[in-house]
Amino acid sequence: MMKPERLKTLFNPESVAVAGATDNENKMGYHVMKSLVESFDGRIYPVNPGKDQVFGIAAYPGVEELPEAPDLAIIVIPREKIHDTVKKFIERGTGAFVIITSGFREAEMPDGGKLHEKLRNLVERANAVVIGPNTFGIVNVRRGLNASFTPALFKVRGGSIALVSQSGGICHLLAPYAMREGIGFSKIIGLGNRLNVDFPEILEYLATDDDTRCIALYIEGTENPRRMLDEIVKITRSKPVVALKAGRFEKADRASRSHTGSMAGDYRIFVSALKQYGAVVAETLEELISFAKALSMQKPMFGDRVAVVSLVAGLGMVACDTAEKCGMKLAEFSENTRSQLYELLPPYTIRDNPVDLGFVASDVELCGKAIELIAEDRNVDGIVLNYVYSWSGDFLQVPVDSIIRASGQKPMTVCLNYPPGTWDDVREKIEANGIPVYSTPEMAVKSLKALGDYGKILLRE
Amino acid sequence: MMKPERLKTLFNPESVAVAGATDNENKMGYHVMKSLVESFDGRIYPVNPGKDQVFGIAAYPGVEELPEAPDLAIIVIPREKIHDTVKKFIERGTGAFVIITSGFREAEMPDGGKLHEKLRNLVERANAVVIGPNTFGIVNVRRGLNASFTPALFKVRGGSIALVSQSGGICHLLAPYAMREGIGFSKIIGLGNRLNVDFPEILEYLATDDDTRCIALYIEGTENPRRMLDEIVKITRSKPVVALKAGRFEKADRASRSHTGSMAGDYRIFVSALKQYGAVVAETLEELISFAKALSMQKPMFGDRVAVVSLVAGLGMVACDTAEKCGMKLAEFSENTRSQLYELLPPYTIRDNPVDLGFVASDVELCGKAIELIAEDRNVDGIVLNYVYSWSGDFLQVPVDSIIRASGQKPMTVCLNYPPGTWDDVREKIEANGIPVYSTPEMAVKSLKALGDYGKILLRE
Repeated sequence: MMKPERLKTLFNPESVAVAGATDNENKMGYHVMKSLVESFDGRIYPVNPGKDQVFGIAAYPGVEELPEAPDLAIIVIPREKIHDTVKKFIERGTGAFVIITSGFREAEMPDGGKLHEKLRNLVERANAVVIGPNTFGIVNVRRGLNASFTPALFKVRGGSIALVSQSGGICHLLAPYAMREGIGFSKIIGLGNRLNVDFPEILEYLATDDDTRCIALYIEGTENPRRMLDEIVKITRSKPVVALKAGRFEKADRASRSHTGSMAGDYRIFVSALKQYGAVVAETLEELISFAKALSMQKPMFGDRVAVVSLVAGLGMVACDTAEKCGMKLAEFSENTRSQLYELLPPYTIRDNPVDLGFVASDVELCGKAIELIAEDRNVDGIVLNYVYSWSGDFLQVPVDSIIRASGQKPMTVCLNYPPGTWDDVREKIEANGIPVYSTPEMAVKSLKALGDYGKILLRE
Repeated sequence: MMKPERLKTLFNPESVAVAGATDNENKMGYHVMKSLVESFDGRIYPVNPGKDQVFGIAAYPGVEELPEAPDLAIIVIPREKIHDTVKKFIERGTGAFVIITSGFREAEMPDGGKLHEKLRNLVERANAVVIGPNTFGIVNVRRGLNASFTPALFKVRGGSIALVSQSGGICHLLAPYAMREGIGFSKIIGLGNRLNVDFPEILEYLATDDDTRCIALYIEGTENPRRMLDEIVKITRSKPVVALKAGRFEKADRASRSHTGSMAGDYRIFVSALKQYGAVVAETLEELISFAKALSMQKPMFGDRVAVVSLVAGLGMVACDTAEKCGMKLAEFSENTRSQLYELLPPYTIRDNPVDLGFVASDVELCGKAIELIAEDRNVDGIVLNYVYSWSGDFLQVPVDSIIRASGQKPMTVCLNYPPGTWDDVREKIEANGIPVYSTPEMAVKSLKALGDYGKILLRE
């Protein structure tokens, strides 16, 4: 089997063994078991030499005693024992591993590098795949597999973003962020020390993964950026890739090497290469996940002429500022749009781009018509819509159906803000129709820009 | 009475009349009444010529019939009737108004400017103060007064930030944002068309307001920036001012004039002037409210040498990137700190700045000691701490007491992320002790930088 097939098994196992499984809450093996039991419907084999049962499930003293070769083995035992245990699993026929244990080449361990190399030779010879070591693990959100030490990671919403990160901390930050923002994942993957599964291998696998529509990468550094870039250029036409490169600060190489054993490299060169090879580049974690949200839900934008439509002028001002700052243009409406808007809307409103619907806000039909009209303008490449909750009760309504129709015409992002418990259903309905919603006009605009960046990538030859 | 005193009455009335009060949900006067009834404990006088009662409260046909001159009158009647109604209130002795009605100089109304001037002459002669017209209103969060058309605005948390905005939409966006982020306000003020209460008057009043420790300004444009700058320079030594200037985009003047009747002016000149006169400048809405949070809770930072301490190296990398990007330096620890950290922490951890506590994360005491040690280093001007929820249950703990002690030594901001319902109490306790918590390392770093900007302002002479 080639690596992508091995990885398919790794992410979709029917049986999983946990070496180091325990009922002792103070050990990592407990948290891994908890994650697995709470997420996985297949066969679970705890391996623990001293216990008959772990988590109430029959346990086995060693790999030899397992009733079958598990599709996936999760390893949470002391690093000294890992080589032999992995060897036994390989001898039984297991070809996929998540190794959570740390202490290989990342930290100040003089023998870490040697252990790393020995393990790599073993698994490479066996044609096996290893996520880690030094990883929190992986989550296959939509197929029910939390092979990580954090049970709460399985609470994320299912979606079509695969988050691939060189840092577990970043996944642990973005997962709750995404929960709050209604962003869904297909997979969450902590690459750790990348024994023999690095960015290129994961990209190659994700290209074949039907659950994944967009890939978000958090990169610190990699030994062979060339291979990663080659995979990005291959995958980007079918699945957009958005990347955040960390390590622009002066001492970054030292920090990165200590963290996952690789150099951060020159930030600017790396980022130019990412752009050139077809990745959309994010500058902050919030951008990374927000851009991925847009790219996983919306079509690309071809062009840079934005229409800004707001219920309140202030948000329109901020949206326009952001649009210009990130290199987009305010669309000049066609004569036809202009004259129709002047007919449709009363004088208190602002009837040119940026459009302000404030004074007809309570007329949901009129607002809807204006939005649809603007979406049809050929001078408009994409739309940012800004709505905020105001007044009380159901008085102010969002023209959801018009928004959905308009988004059929042009790429669109929405800024929608409201007190908890008021417009949750509105937001749900908009997003269920593939239109990403954000909490600030700035992020709605920047995410539309990401759709434009992707459009430019697609137009290249 | 001078304007600051008049404004004190406006924000702290004992009696409030609503001209245009109604039980008809389709009218703004309904929403204003709802806001008032749900927030205000004083005497409420609905004014409505056709009703005996509004919201079950005795109503009066006109101003003449009111049993007393109310301290504050909220005006939600058609614009043509406003001048005469305000005149009657003034004759009764009312000196404070919130005029919500629109259609003055902001929009494409040919006679709007004339109405505006006439009204201004009236109230100026009477030495009265007007918030608006064309405003959603004001909220005195801590004294129980929601004089706005949005009842939900009263759900914001009480705090010490006064948000002063030229756009109601921005307040309506930032209020729910703040609810989610646990940010509290003293006052929320929509200036609208600034008939005779503009930024300078509000700043002069807020200087005397004990509930307000920090002022956040959203500025589109103002006729007399000089006066505003003079007030900023006066107030900034006692209360930090953070400002976001909108309108950097090309067509901003047109949009701004349509919105609240003033030119946006040259963005860069305006922003340089703001900085020079002692405001901390924000570039995004999220920054505006996040910086205000830090400035309302923490002491200023004197210097730019940051220590980054993280539970997970990835967040530390991103924090360092952000620190360098916004012009701060990574602190070089003293020899003493270095040697003590090497004694305290095992080799898997990263024991120099940026410090990574990952491998001792479960040892809450050790993490706490490291944080306190770093806070004592004279080479450190401020600290950013990054913690994320991991594992399950209460296994991973945040060294809250050490964080509180460390923040007694140095200005500190914290990035804390966790799934809903897990660490809410931890966050509450940290913030109750004056340490602002953010959802991303970027915002924690930038907000520490805002404390440094304020420190620089204070050191000027």
